[in-house]
Amino acid sequence: MSSTTGLSNEFPVPERMKAWVLGGPEELHLVDKPVPAPGPAEVLVRVDAVAICATDLEILKHGVPALVDGELPFNKNFTIGHEYMGTVVRLGPAVDEFQPGDRVTVEVHAGCGRCERCREGMYTSCLNYGNRAKGHRANGFTTDGGFAEYAVNNINTLVHVPDDMSDAEATLVVTAGTSMYGLDVLGGLVAGDGVVVTGPGPIGLLGVAVAKALGADPVILTGTRESRLELGRRLGADHTVNAREEDAVAAVRRLTGGRGVRFVIECSGAPNALNEAAQMVNRGGRICLAAFPEERVPVDVAHIVRNNIYVYGIRGEGKSATHRAMALMKQKRFDAKLVHTHTFPLDDLPTGLRYARERIDNAIKVVVTAQR
Amino acid sequence: MSSTTGLSNEFPVPERMKAWVLGGPEELHLVDKPVPAPGPAEVLVRVDAVAICATDLEILKHGVPALVDGELPFNKNFTIGHEYMGTVVRLGPAVDEFQPGDRVTVEVHAGCGRCERCREGMYTSCLNYGNRAKGHRANGFTTDGGFAEYAVNNINTLVHVPDDMSDAEATLVVTAGTSMYGLDVLGGLVAGDGVVVTGPGPIGLLGVAVAKALGADPVILTGTRESRLELGRRLGADHTVNAREEDAVAAVRRLTGGRGVRFVIECSGAPNALNEAAQMVNRGGRICLAAFPEERVPVDVAHIVRNNIYVYGIRGEGKSATHRAMALMKQKRFDAKLVHTHTFPLDDLPTGLRYARERIDNAIKVVVTAQR
Amino acid sequence: MSSTTGLSNEFPVPERMKAWVLGGPEELHLVDKPVPAPGPAEVLVRVDAVAICATDLEILKHGVPALVDGELPFNKNFTIGHEYMGTVVRLGPAVDEFQPGDRVTVEVHAGCGRCERCREGMYTSCLNYGNRAKGHRANGFTTDGGFAEYAVNNINTLVHVPDDMSDAEATLVVTAGTSMYGLDVLGGLVAGDGVVVTGPGPIGLLGVAVAKALGADPVILTGTRESRLELGRRLGADHTVNAREEDAVAAVRRLTGGRGVRFVIECSGAPNALNEAAQMVNRGGRICLAAFPEERVPVDVAHIVRNNIYVYGIRGEGKSATHRAMALMKQKRFDAKLVHTHTFPLDDLPTGLRYARERIDNAIKVVVTAQR
Amino acid sequence: MSSTTGLSNEFPVPERMKAWVLGGPEELHLVDKPVPAPGPAEVLVRVDAVAICATDLEILKHGVPALVDGELPFNKNFTIGHEYMGTVVRLGPAVDEFQPGDRVTVEVHAGCGRCERCREGMYTSCLNYGNRAKGHRANGFTTDGGFAEYAVNNINTLVHVPDDMSDAEATLVVTAGTSMYGLDVLGGLVAGDGVVVTGPGPIGLLGVAVAKALGADPVILTGTRESRLELGRRLGADHTVNAREEDAVAAVRRLTGGRGVRFVIECSGAPNALNEAAQMVNRGGRICLAAFPEERVPVDVAHIVRNNIYVYGIRGEGKSATHRAMALMKQKRFDAKLVHTHTFPLDDLPTGLRYARERIDNAIKVVVTAQR
Repeated sequence: MSSTTGLSNEFPVPERMKAWVLGGPEELHLVDKPVPAPGPAEVLVRVDAVAICATDLEILKHGVPALVDGELPFNKNFTIGHEYMGTVVRLGPAVDEFQPGDRVTVEVHAGCGRCERCREGMYTSCLNYGNRAKGHRANGFTTDGGFAEYAVNNINTLVHVPDDMSDAEATLVVTAGTSMYGLDVLGGLVAGDGVVVTGPGPIGLLGVAVAKALGADPVILTGTRESRLELGRRLGADHTVNAREEDAVAAVRRLTGGRGVRFVIECSGAPNALNEAAQMVNRGGRICLAAFPEERVPVDVAHIVRNNIYVYGIRGEGKSATHRAMALMKQKRFDAKLVHTHTFPLDDLPTGLRYARERIDNAIKVVVTAQR
Repeated sequence: MSSTTGLSNEFPVPERMKAWVLGGPEELHLVDKPVPAPGPAEVLVRVDAVAICATDLEILKHGVPALVDGELPFNKNFTIGHEYMGTVVRLGPAVDEFQPGDRVTVEVHAGCGRCERCREGMYTSCLNYGNRAKGHRANGFTTDGGFAEYAVNNINTLVHVPDDMSDAEATLVVTAGTSMYGLDVLGGLVAGDGVVVTGPGPIGLLGVAVAKALGADPVILTGTRESRLELGRRLGADHTVNAREEDAVAAVRRLTGGRGVRFVIECSGAPNALNEAAQMVNRGGRICLAAFPEERVPVDVAHIVRNNIYVYGIRGEGKSATHRAMALMKQKRFDAKLVHTHTFPLDDLPTGLRYARERIDNAIKVVVTAQR
Repeated sequence: MSSTTGLSNEFPVPERMKAWVLGGPEELHLVDKPVPAPGPAEVLVRVDAVAICATDLEILKHGVPALVDGELPFNKNFTIGHEYMGTVVRLGPAVDEFQPGDRVTVEVHAGCGRCERCREGMYTSCLNYGNRAKGHRANGFTTDGGFAEYAVNNINTLVHVPDDMSDAEATLVVTAGTSMYGLDVLGGLVAGDGVVVTGPGPIGLLGVAVAKALGADPVILTGTRESRLELGRRLGADHTVNAREEDAVAAVRRLTGGRGVRFVIECSGAPNALNEAAQMVNRGGRICLAAFPEERVPVDVAHIVRNNIYVYGIRGEGKSATHRAMALMKQKRFDAKLVHTHTFPLDDLPTGLRYARERIDNAIKVVVTAQR
Repeated sequence: MSSTTGLSNEFPVPERMKAWVLGGPEELHLVDKPVPAPGPAEVLVRVDAVAICATDLEILKHGVPALVDGELPFNKNFTIGHEYMGTVVRLGPAVDEFQPGDRVTVEVHAGCGRCERCREGMYTSCLNYGNRAKGHRANGFTTDGGFAEYAVNNINTLVHVPDDMSDAEATLVVTAGTSMYGLDVLGGLVAGDGVVVTGPGPIGLLGVAVAKALGADPVILTGTRESRLELGRRLGADHTVNAREEDAVAAVRRLTGGRGVRFVIECSGAPNALNEAAQMVNRGGRICLAAFPEERVPVDVAHIVRNNIYVYGIRGEGKSATHRAMALMKQKRFDAKLVHTHTFPLDDLPTGLRYARERIDNAIKVVVTAQR
């Protein structure tokens, strides 16, 4: 039994736990290790469910967080997994924002709180990224994540889960939060404005849902797989464009009476996506890049400048956007569960990863759950 | 004598005037044509001085405004020139914001006032760009400009010139206004923050001056010509980097203790400028693109996304930035005259254009003045 | 038959029309007068329905627009009414944004487009307020309004009405737009944040609806009449507080676990409303004042300063908020019709005004409709 | 010798120090007490100079921080003083942002970093105000301040002092930072806009200086003492108004051609100051309240609403404004030293407080310095 503060008989915590850790590239090992203890402003979370993100697959392949510019070495013995939810079981010193037994879901980033960016609230751009000694944490990127029985979390990364929301749905909040953050950086006021979402992955699909929930009109989703586009329509897309059948830019122009839209959220990472987005928006339009191609790609910078276009790169889910996303989900404004397609037990994480990587059986979000 | 409203004996206006008009590519003709009459919200300006902008050279070459995406045909008989100043000589109906005799300098854009963008104050992104019937005007781009004895101006494009500012200096306000607008879109609060200006053309040099006037620290200018960099230092650059001698990104990192800067204003249009700017800023950094390469260029979009970088394309000088630029110039916060190198009479405009195009005698800003 | 441009056989327009005009205080006369002609950027609207606003009653009583600081004389022969909708029947020159036959509803303000405020998009704060020669128009305040068969409108004041929205519902868009604007000035991002609306008049009730539609949580409505509070609950209030039964500040604290809320929209005009609002918000909270007491009232300025509270006075519905409100109403996010209680024919306007003034039969929004 | 981390032979730190502590109201005692040790994200500062703020006098009188709503008891044995500067002598764990020997000046607030406000960068509105266990600190308000030989500081409250700035001048940075923050909340872009500062206390006088440094035009200072107004002119006021000789509102209207100004920073705390400010601004104008009357005062709320006026209460110097203020002072944009009138040794603090309280010899800023 742990001697951590916040001890509660109701939530006995063992001294050791099972956790998946990185070996070499594409290697994961299930090991037995000590349950960590929460420090100031932290809690210990018993992980109940974790969704698999494409970034997990990247880390597993390259060993370094795909969102960091090659700063970190391949991280052996590290536990990835950042889209998890669970139950608070231990409190660090001076924590009263959460109580043992609270169901919570997590966002990725806790900033250092002391750099220029954190001081202005831009904690996902923390200038001490990866510096744990100074307080930065990125769950599953720079600090152990959720493919384990227990995980320590800074309270800034936690959102309360309502009783009537399932574990699996709660794991999707961080994805919806990323979509919400994308709209935030575009200005936030989207009611009555056109929004194109390019790329029907989980962030794109929930981007459709959030944009529609906030009143965007029309919401247009572009993609290449009809099943995903169909899902987009169920989540609120007014129109979908299959880029295999029609030029996406031409389609957006057609659907908007030639005017184009004000906002694009780029979620495909396709090589020409930024150029196409710049053709979809009208003068003064804004583009949020939530995905990217790995290689340098040819960009029509002149078009961006001549048309006063603003382009916002985002990593993850800043400005407490997960809280706003949760508020919409709690109010049943859209059914995020539609993107959850498969569930596996934690012991069978490799199978889950394979389904996600190979999109077996049209997998979108694969969720791994604890067995108790 | 014109019968326009606002008639004044003090400012007799002839019925006809001399004006340079476009012929074919690289052809300019000095013609005799009627003096135009100002309509509602307009005044007639007697042009006293005009600075030559690189964009003038582009229009002269291609016949279409370089800032517009090929929407307008080659505009024969059109008068270009948009960096002009002069004296108000006639008022349109209901104009009392200016009086005959007022010295004024101009900015380029008057929006339609009725599209989405104009309604939110983004008049340089007017969705009715080029539509004169709906009220849009872009001096020297879509409506006759300043290489003439007289020009009609919407009052929104005018800024009062103080008595102690020379005609030549007043022509530089729109350039400084563009630089100011670049800082505006970056957030405006630059005191104590690092600003890199890439490209020591007129906008870049005055960008240095404006950034320093607002307290940016350090201000770093990159370029390839030592004479321009020297000018940058005189205008307020704390450091200059000659990119022929040192890698500009490495220099910025060195000069900032490895931290990089928060803001870059890109004024070079170099093919790799955006990538370099993205390496100069730190996480959450912001880049304003005030110049661009004509061709598509390879861009490291992944770096922009991974580092939460925002990129703002701007065309010209929105949000009344010329007024703020004039306020600083009026208060002698910097000496914009340093970028003015040559003066020619209006009749000799072709010589002035040649000096500007070929940078004869290290020409930076060439100003053409009326003879009276 | 008018000879205005945009002539169409489908929409014959008579030369004269019936219109209600102000006499002395509390005097209205139904007169016969010429149908006005639209100018540039204007259309002629055949009025189909008008809602009565409390401000109409103020103007009728005092002769001057209640929203203007005593600048205008009592306006005899003036037609009030600003919450109207109708059908476009004539187009001014160069108008193609609307076509004859289009159903439209109106917002109040068209700015001059040339003052400092309009240039930055703050057209409801136009510095040329009331100056028609310079282009300012405030429907029913400084230019003839909607209690007539026809009204001229600047196109900036028009919003398209979808086919499936009734005339009466469409008159409520400007009210919802005012509520939406209130949320805009508070920052716009309200999902998951607490919003208190004080005062269940039409703006307050639709403020509840808009806040809830955008995901605010909780939405708390305070008032004194149970029937209005019940309506608030139907429009989305999570909690209502009857200030006759419970101290409103204490109730808000109780309902929010002692934390208070981030945002208050004050719609009551009660003498102590600002002080109470300042007690309802937490540190750094924001208050929008959409109503006001006529007399000076004691205010605890110290509390506002000590707690970093921001207070935003708003008049009407700026920043195109009516378009955003319409987008939500078109998408059936709330049922604005719930606040529409009574309908009278235009000829019987005095009865409608009496119902509105005396709240006969619990009148909330009284709508007057054209008879054809 | 302390055993704190960051030990350095160059900066020997004794185990005990002299410190002034509160007794009862208006009682201060000089006591001997242990030198505190810095924790994570903290440093120990040897205090070299402290300026006396009017708030110090308030706390001394009432025992509770004047900026807090009566939440804290009279704080016996507490050391006040929040406008201090000194030398870093010890580093807490993981601190590398400062080194022993660094000269630093301080701002007041370190937020908890975990509440809603801190997460969005509004750390002066921390919802855990006064909760040290959760990390909030307000130097000299809720944690021991600078009227002592040593003080612990969170690194977020520190600004580097350049070599050529005197100790006394450095104590003024937090005051200039408050003025800067006032301009920030008003929008920050003041070049060419009119700014009125009401009340020529230290914040008002430096408000004049900062506004002028950023290009505001005109800057108008109102007050009642000619000597203070004269100082305002030396710090950059274009005009001063002696409210004993002329109605301040009328004067502002006269000086601005009847137009009024866009911005007012209220620094007087006079009972009618908010009403006068609301008359000085034009429609859509903005008022920052940096001072306040203790009692409730009659306010013309109707005027604020009818004119779309925004009112921002501020406590202190948020959003890293001290860094921006320091940047301007380091660049010699204004001479803050003009407000420093008297100097006393730390042992003679009571005399310094008396000079400040009674404005003996026209005292403005009284600075207390360490003797070594």
